[in-house]
Amino acid sequence: MGNIGWYIRARSAAYSAKGSGEMAGDVKRRLTSLKLRDVKFDDGFWAPRIEANRQNTFAAQEKQLRETARLKTLRLGWKTGDPDKPHIFWDSDIYKWIEAVAYDDERAPGSESAGAVEQVADDIVRMQQPDGYLNSYFTIVEPEARWTNLRDRHELYCAGHFFEAAVAHFDATGSRKLLDVACRFADHIDSQFGPEEGKRRGYPGHEEIELALVKLARASGKREYLDLAKFFIDERGAEPHYFEVEAVARGEKASPHGRKFDYWQAHAPVREQRTVEGHSVRAGYLFAGAADVAAETGDEELLESIKTVWDNTTTRRMYVTGGIGSAAHGERFTCDYDLPNLTAYAETCAAISLVFWAKRMIEVEPDSKYADVMERALYNGVTSGISLDGRKFFYENPLESRGTHNRKEWFGCACCPPNIARLLASMGHYAYSVGDGEAFVHLYAQGSASFTVGDMNGTRVSLDVKTEYPWKEKVLVTVSPEAPAEFALAFRLPGWCRKPTAKVNGKPVSTKKAEKGYLKIARKWKKGDKVALAFPMPIERIEARPEIGMDAGRVALQRGPVVYCLEEVDNGASLNSICLPSGAKLKATFDKELLGGVTVITGAAKRRDASKWKPDELYRAEPQGKAAKLKAARIKAVPYSAWDNRAPGEMLVWIREY
Amino acid sequence: MGNIGWYIRARSAAYSAKGSGEMAGDVKRRLTSLKLRDVKFDDGFWAPRIEANRQNTFAAQEKQLRETARLKTLRLGWKTGDPDKPHIFWDSDIYKWIEAVAYDDERAPGSESAGAVEQVADDIVRMQQPDGYLNSYFTIVEPEARWTNLRDRHELYCAGHFFEAAVAHFDATGSRKLLDVACRFADHIDSQFGPEEGKRRGYPGHEEIELALVKLARASGKREYLDLAKFFIDERGAEPHYFEVEAVARGEKASPHGRKFDYWQAHAPVREQRTVEGHSVRAGYLFAGAADVAAETGDEELLESIKTVWDNTTTRRMYVTGGIGSAAHGERFTCDYDLPNLTAYAETCAAISLVFWAKRMIEVEPDSKYADVMERALYNGVTSGISLDGRKFFYENPLESRGTHNRKEWFGCACCPPNIARLLASMGHYAYSVGDGEAFVHLYAQGSASFTVGDMNGTRVSLDVKTEYPWKEKVLVTVSPEAPAEFALAFRLPGWCRKPTAKVNGKPVSTKKAEKGYLKIARKWKKGDKVALAFPMPIERIEARPEIGMDAGRVALQRGPVVYCLEEVDNGASLNSICLPSGAKLKATFDKELLGGVTVITGAAKRRDASKWKPDELYRAEPQGKAAKLKAARIKAVPYSAWDNRAPGEMLVWIREY
Repeated sequence: MGNIGWYIRARSAAYSAKGSGEMAGDVKRRLTSLKLRDVKFDDGFWAPRIEANRQNTFAAQEKQLRETARLKTLRLGWKTGDPDKPHIFWDSDIYKWIEAVAYDDERAPGSESAGAVEQVADDIVRMQQPDGYLNSYFTIVEPEARWTNLRDRHELYCAGHFFEAAVAHFDATGSRKLLDVACRFADHIDSQFGPEEGKRRGYPGHEEIELALVKLARASGKREYLDLAKFFIDERGAEPHYFEVEAVARGEKASPHGRKFDYWQAHAPVREQRTVEGHSVRAGYLFAGAADVAAETGDEELLESIKTVWDNTTTRRMYVTGGIGSAAHGERFTCDYDLPNLTAYAETCAAISLVFWAKRMIEVEPDSKYADVMERALYNGVTSGISLDGRKFFYENPLESRGTHNRKEWFGCACCPPNIARLLASMGHYAYSVGDGEAFVHLYAQGSASFTVGDMNGTRVSLDVKTEYPWKEKVLVTVSPEAPAEFALAFRLPGWCRKPTAKVNGKPVSTKKAEKGYLKIARKWKKGDKVALAFPMPIERIEARPEIGMDAGRVALQRGPVVYCLEEVDNGASLNSICLPSGAKLKATFDKELLGGVTVITGAAKRRDASKWKPDELYRAEPQGKAAKLKAARIKAVPYSAWDNRAPGEMLVWIREY
Repeated sequence: MGNIGWYIRARSAAYSAKGSGEMAGDVKRRLTSLKLRDVKFDDGFWAPRIEANRQNTFAAQEKQLRETARLKTLRLGWKTGDPDKPHIFWDSDIYKWIEAVAYDDERAPGSESAGAVEQVADDIVRMQQPDGYLNSYFTIVEPEARWTNLRDRHELYCAGHFFEAAVAHFDATGSRKLLDVACRFADHIDSQFGPEEGKRRGYPGHEEIELALVKLARASGKREYLDLAKFFIDERGAEPHYFEVEAVARGEKASPHGRKFDYWQAHAPVREQRTVEGHSVRAGYLFAGAADVAAETGDEELLESIKTVWDNTTTRRMYVTGGIGSAAHGERFTCDYDLPNLTAYAETCAAISLVFWAKRMIEVEPDSKYADVMERALYNGVTSGISLDGRKFFYENPLESRGTHNRKEWFGCACCPPNIARLLASMGHYAYSVGDGEAFVHLYAQGSASFTVGDMNGTRVSLDVKTEYPWKEKVLVTVSPEAPAEFALAFRLPGWCRKPTAKVNGKPVSTKKAEKGYLKIARKWKKGDKVALAFPMPIERIEARPEIGMDAGRVALQRGPVVYCLEEVDNGASLNSICLPSGAKLKATFDKELLGGVTVITGAAKRRDASKWKPDELYRAEPQGKAAKLKAARIKAVPYSAWDNRAPGEMLVWIREY
């Protein structure tokens, strides 16, 4: 069993962090991530995206942060009447950018943006108030309004993003410059919030601080931050309802629109929730943070609730792309099986929050059902959020477009761009994890990883991975411990793969004995041992449950973990006029020139002639006989994540079947 | 040419109304409705609904108005701190109920609810303030806020509904009790609003008063009410923007969410609008009122705009049921071809507003394209709004349901129930109209109509209609003028009918020479002349334009004007698992026992076995070969308007084709 005491000791040794802490009793967390410097991607899917992130995204975002006056705001010079009035959550965009650059700098030191980050970090140090408070808006625009509206005003959300940035910066640089600011701020928050007399019994309207406090606890060794995270989780939805209490204190109506608190996941205590409700990013962050708290505190009851909500999310309310939150209105979940395609909101941040949540579920309980969802989101609904060159972003990720949905350089509400930047820079956290006497491979990508199995006295092990995944089925892992050592290596058998095979040093290993979807090979590993995996990836026609009415009679094409779509640039306009005959042959071909090198799917199809409609005809009697005949056509499908990187046009994931 | 001077003279003669007015210069209005007492329905579709309305709906709504404290509010006894705090638009629900009962009382005197209406009318007389103002909320709750927020607070909307009620009451009873209150209130409004110095240059956030003022002008003969209606139309969207002016006057930000005035159809002057935008009911009422103003003032430019917006509405943004306003968020129009079925809002009031608008277009320019839409809405998306027994209502009218959408007795926002009540009670206004030397038949229903063609010295004519429309194709009209007379009878040739035929006294008349969709027969009519029409109504499989992606590969069944749907009670659950083979035979059968007597459509279909999905499987690889085989099934479709009158369950209009 991994435990946080161990984790903190590890950090202490590496960075001479101050406190080692007194955390954990019934600690449940089983796995931790590798350090980013210990994971390398050298593949065709992630490596170019990680490189574009470093080369293009960081600088472009810094430019946006500067031009939109966000960076200037940190210097607290704004006064009433000045232009560029700060916004309540501007700080968070900066913090996510710092976090992204820091991860990337840890991954591969020498990022050009690291210098800019240090200057901004200095501004942040100066911005901190004597009492530890840190928020530009509530320092210079509405200082009197501090902590008066947790429901709407994102103070704790911004705090959370700062804590995450500070921990990432500490991990990358070893410097406590931001970590100390974070601890002072967290101490201040701890002095304001809690069950004790005289403290506020509140919790954030936009969750984020929960998972961030657990990170900060782990980095600083201060157990009280974990306790504070637990407090925020436990108070949520309790009566008297804090959002009403604070509204009345502001002189407003308690609940102007009735007691509809599901938007904030505050309609019931977290441990009583059974379905995923409300704003999707908030929900994802909440349950990720709650999973951390459950793991660190051994809270079985809380964990069971989270698992129930996870199942509701991923077996009732998730797009085939891993997108979540189907409704634009409220950026939220609606009801089971309501997954419209054209109007799918599926915010990039929401898919990212699902990845965060999945990672934490894996750490508590390694089960490939979590990693399958994580992989689905990563290869599809997350990466669709950024252009191949790293310069443009989607906020919404619909599964069908009329051609008017195109990536943009920035958004007024700019949460998504730096969110995907920090995720890409920290991909190393998601591919592997390590526990006591065991290491896990969750994602397959050419590259390498190194880690120590067990405690600090364990053996250093490196893995070298050769594969053309996700385009080709073979994965060859060379295992190299410093010295021969007994431990288990657990390889995820992807849920999409029907007939995975494995060999160790040429000798077949049955994949039937997988433990919760992981093929666990426990042996005395020695340098040069080879694990050869194969995950045959025929083109699959995916169908959706009949309850998802909008997908009825349609199929999505998937090959390996990659979901495909049709684009107008390849298939002409009116994509809904295309029908794919059931059983028709489809062919997968790798095209190294296309979209950075992708496998495309081609095949024969049929097409209704859309040209024969009169301009003002909305409905008509269906032509019969010869006029009803479909014309022969061919389709070419490309990975969904790569759409809208060429000429703007229509796009369609769910293709009509005939 | 009909003109309002003529119309008012007609009223004057009938009721000794006071002013005859000086309206009209370039008057354009060509047709007027018949009096409700002069139209009888004796058919299987409308007559039972009109009777249920009289027998059940009025009393049930009176009960709701009483129990929800709306009626009590009129007596102005509420004080701060009392329960049942009045709401800003409660009055309007009462007014629509009065209007409904009045129409019905004119149609067939002796309605049991007429007595209750008189008592409420007395309360209204007492409620009117010395200056003519009439609104319970702004008299007893926020008197200081009168006319301070036209954008949001529905004062002019309530006024409009009162004017409509007052005119209906006057028409039914000949009493000026409410009409005089209405004129005093309208005079007060006229003193507050207008282009003159010192008056407000405002207009309502929720349109309604425009069409109501034209009605009031016609009933009272007071031209200034028409001028006021024209003012409201002309000011709308003008700069400086009144919604900003009044917001600033309230001490608020001019446009807190940017200048997004399309929700209120105030993003541009009405005569510059080309597409239908924003809240659908408001849009429908606006353009209906604008058509009235254009008709009465001969405003060609305005009329052209309205026609352009009409075409946008009905050829880009209308459901096959005649429903409009696809989005729940904002109860509004979105963009061309965005017509989702499961989440269709298609408010009952919006379909009604389309009927109002269509009627007024017909009156200006008889063209069957308007009447076709009117008929489509009436037989489908309007009548779906009320249960067959007249006791329950839909607010939204989706084209697909998972079984949880069911009619309710009342709503917190109760606009729809009394709206459909007043429409059903006034169906006589929609079936026929009359002009100078011509009369029009727009809708076919067994019953009778009588009217005078031309001015007051014209000949009295009665029509006797025998038909089983909408279930059977034949319509026999017996024409009986008091004395032989020259005039034209124009019969609408329904747009859905491919091969209409007509005979006059047994002699075929070509239907090819129709004028804008109306077969116009001008002759010297004598008593007993017979016009025999036939509108063959095969079952049509309707397809939607390819741009409406959600309907691609699906058909809606329509026969005559009636759109059909599948219900779970007839077809089992999982309606999207049903596929209708293209070209398969479908059969229409009249079932007199079912749903009050309807024609049902039956036929052979196929069905995917939905039972084989695991409970937690959201997506799967499509079964191939034998497992993919569809099972034989039968379908039974019933009229959409009659759905949800039996066991609650799934419903589907657009059926997958195979």
